[in-house]
Amino acid sequence: MNRAASGILPAIAVDRRSPTPLHKQIYDGFRSAILRRELRPGQRIPSSRELAIELRVSRFPVLNAYAQLLAEGYFESSVGSGTFVSSALPEQRMSVALPRTSVNKPSGPRPVARGSRLYPDFENQPAIRGWGAFGVHQPALDQFPFQLWSSLVAHHSRNPHANAIHHINPLGTERFREAIADYLRAARGVKCEVDQIMIVSGSQQALDITARVLFDRGDPVWVEEPGYRLQRSVLTAAGCIPVPISVDNEGMNVAAGIRARRKARAAFVTPSHQYPLGVTMSASRRLQLLNWAQTVGAWIIEDDYDSEYRYESMPIASLHGLDVNQRVIYIGTFSKVLFPSLRLGYIVIPPDLVERFVAVRHVMDIFPPYLYQEVLSDFINEGHFTRHIRRMRQTYGEKRTALVESLKAEFGRELEIHGAEAGMHLAMTLQDGLRDTGIAARAGRERLWLWPLSPSYLGEKHRNGFILGFGSIPRDQISASVRHLRTIISSK
Amino acid sequence: MNRAASGILPAIAVDRRSPTPLHKQIYDGFRSAILRRELRPGQRIPSSRELAIELRVSRFPVLNAYAQLLAEGYFESSVGSGTFVSSALPEQRMSVALPRTSVNKPSGPRPVARGSRLYPDFENQPAIRGWGAFGVHQPALDQFPFQLWSSLVAHHSRNPHANAIHHINPLGTERFREAIADYLRAARGVKCEVDQIMIVSGSQQALDITARVLFDRGDPVWVEEPGYRLQRSVLTAAGCIPVPISVDNEGMNVAAGIRARRKARAAFVTPSHQYPLGVTMSASRRLQLLNWAQTVGAWIIEDDYDSEYRYESMPIASLHGLDVNQRVIYIGTFSKVLFPSLRLGYIVIPPDLVERFVAVRHVMDIFPPYLYQEVLSDFINEGHFTRHIRRMRQTYGEKRTALVESLKAEFGRELEIHGAEAGMHLAMTLQDGLRDTGIAARAGRERLWLWPLSPSYLGEKHRNGFILGFGSIPRDQISASVRHLRTIISSK
Repeated sequence: MNRAASGILPAIAVDRRSPTPLHKQIYDGFRSAILRRELRPGQRIPSSRELAIELRVSRFPVLNAYAQLLAEGYFESSVGSGTFVSSALPEQRMSVALPRTSVNKPSGPRPVARGSRLYPDFENQPAIRGWGAFGVHQPALDQFPFQLWSSLVAHHSRNPHANAIHHINPLGTERFREAIADYLRAARGVKCEVDQIMIVSGSQQALDITARVLFDRGDPVWVEEPGYRLQRSVLTAAGCIPVPISVDNEGMNVAAGIRARRKARAAFVTPSHQYPLGVTMSASRRLQLLNWAQTVGAWIIEDDYDSEYRYESMPIASLHGLDVNQRVIYIGTFSKVLFPSLRLGYIVIPPDLVERFVAVRHVMDIFPPYLYQEVLSDFINEGHFTRHIRRMRQTYGEKRTALVESLKAEFGRELEIHGAEAGMHLAMTLQDGLRDTGIAARAGRERLWLWPLSPSYLGEKHRNGFILGFGSIPRDQISASVRHLRTIISSK
Repeated sequence: MNRAASGILPAIAVDRRSPTPLHKQIYDGFRSAILRRELRPGQRIPSSRELAIELRVSRFPVLNAYAQLLAEGYFESSVGSGTFVSSALPEQRMSVALPRTSVNKPSGPRPVARGSRLYPDFENQPAIRGWGAFGVHQPALDQFPFQLWSSLVAHHSRNPHANAIHHINPLGTERFREAIADYLRAARGVKCEVDQIMIVSGSQQALDITARVLFDRGDPVWVEEPGYRLQRSVLTAAGCIPVPISVDNEGMNVAAGIRARRKARAAFVTPSHQYPLGVTMSASRRLQLLNWAQTVGAWIIEDDYDSEYRYESMPIASLHGLDVNQRVIYIGTFSKVLFPSLRLGYIVIPPDLVERFVAVRHVMDIFPPYLYQEVLSDFINEGHFTRHIRRMRQTYGEKRTALVESLKAEFGRELEIHGAEAGMHLAMTLQDGLRDTGIAARAGRERLWLWPLSPSYLGEKHRNGFILGFGSIPRDQISASVRHLRTIISSK
């Protein structure tokens, strides 16, 4: 790490009343800092002029100290570049043991919250780390208009509006929420007013805030089986009981849910393109679910990711649009549509809950960052967003078709394909006897990124298979990737 | 809102097998969407060519439908601009009641979590809304190098590194954490390695994550009295018991804390510049606090905001730097040093707790946004950060001096000034009998932003006064603002 911080002033104190000369105090201060590794080799030292100003001393003691540190090899300098902590410090000096502040091994009680143990360990799965075939939630970045985007970013970055910069509405900026409200009303049939919309950093934060507002420990909540693991983690961390309700070709089996746990607090669904199987929730199941929620006094959380891309028919309107009782909390995200590190999504909140959501958000992190809200407002209002979606729908449709054809060609009847009518991924299920997690691990070593299907199940009974994302694979690499997949599955 | 979303496709479905002609289906679809207010006046309609492609129909039925909608006044168009929903729709058409999806008043049980009631109501205080005299935590934005900043922003925005964009380390990017580690080791005496650092959206998120890792319901936690209300809110929301420990001219009274609640789970302190009174925690109190924590097995959360600016002496090293038992969780923020909507801060975590912090962060919101981490890494590594701090130290020092002189001139012995030796605010206490909240409300109506001191107290016993921020007041307006303050306090 050679581009170290420039000219940071170490915490050197000089005491004018001390009998020790100033130049010696300054020399001692730097030397100790270097030996204690508070200053690292290669790190830039302030110029003697800057340090003199900071310490409010004459420049002479500083120059004196610097000369000695240079002579002894603690500093090195190059004309025009400045002064640095020497990259090659003599061994014997580093071994000088200074008294004080070496750190003890931790000892004594170091208690963490019992509640913190409800959070699952973070596993940096190989499948998550890789970009490319067949990573899930990975858009085709080569087609994102980064030039246009960055000119919008630069524009807003240059012209900070003081009010906006200080704007601390936990819901987010009004302009951005208006753009989203217009979009949702028109494209997703979501009925909402601007002040029902909260800007969040993504679906995950949306789920987290929702859980804090609505759920107490021990509350049972319906989740799709198979479903989205990270969503279940939010519930588990909140102390809730996820109740897995099986998904068939119409979506979540509401009747099964009622039999299993009629008085659940809420149901979490992905009705546009079920994660991971890709099923679209049928109209009758939607009405059953809404009916159940109003009858027992439950909430429905609709995660509408991936709703922009349908290949066989027109977009399906949201579940929220059918809800006349304001029991649906609607979550959407821009991260999968634009790019993942954008960290921007939204919640549409039933009006009587807005006040609680705002109270929770304020305490959690006060307000969302300003820049991308402004940029995305322009991006939407100037028509680039819909243009981009339209273009990507075309691109993903072609990739999807190529992938399905390749899979059929390579595997024939050996596998079933699910959910290929929409979205940026499909699911393939294998014959029994194959362990999808084992195959995924092997594939990761060969840089083929497979998301195994079985971890999506909460219960014991599960299918083996893979969730194949196709957003980020170059079209001309699809066949080769599928052949690679075939090879890995067939081996051993 | 006239810059409505451009060309959003409403969820119009066409059914080729239906006996209804295509042009009638398209006409009906748009008309219904307009009457149900899913499309709003002034909203842009896709071109007939675009819609034909989307619906996979010939362009003729689309043109036919558009012509009728234009003729009937649902659409309006201007050559070269496009087609829009008419801004002036005839009244009688809007009053046509369509069956379905008008929304009912909420009814039936609509339960929120008992836990959510622990979050205080969000009050949009007048004092918080205003920018300028005497808003707290408001840097001098006119001196922020926005041109330089935005060129860095544009650079990184233009050159997305695919790996970085997909980077999902809950801690944040390594490059940024290295820059922070270098800075902290050198400037604050914080001993840390890169993998102890977690990037957060600010002190508030840092406190929130920390509470989730460390505290269970009912845990007692020492807080400074007076202290930081939003910090207490995090504890209350987590179900903890904040135990107010009085602050004197040496900082938190540790002995009083031990008498009040020896076995507390943690202590929250602001040792560099106590919020709100501005006291610097003395060396002996620091050692007492560290000693206590190790003896009883407690944690210390050090919120080191405002540590960059000291006016009377050299910077004080962090409490963390004195801790040999790794019990201090160190929180810092860039938002107050650079600009508030930046939403960037960091936590330095004891090594044995890192795994739990990562697990919690992953579930809360997965990973922090990428762009500003890269920008700020450059800003720090190229020396702009320290240059900026140095410049602001000068600026704030001058404003501070002017403010203190004005206050003394206007008020003389009527008030006490606290905490003027450091930071971007000071506290002034008034004689008894004056209600600071009432005065603040009156001042807000005259656009003078006063943060009252009394709400900073948890207990009944409190002082009246104001926390006066001076970061954002133009230097030449300080006297006038103080006279304005004087007038408001004197009146009535």
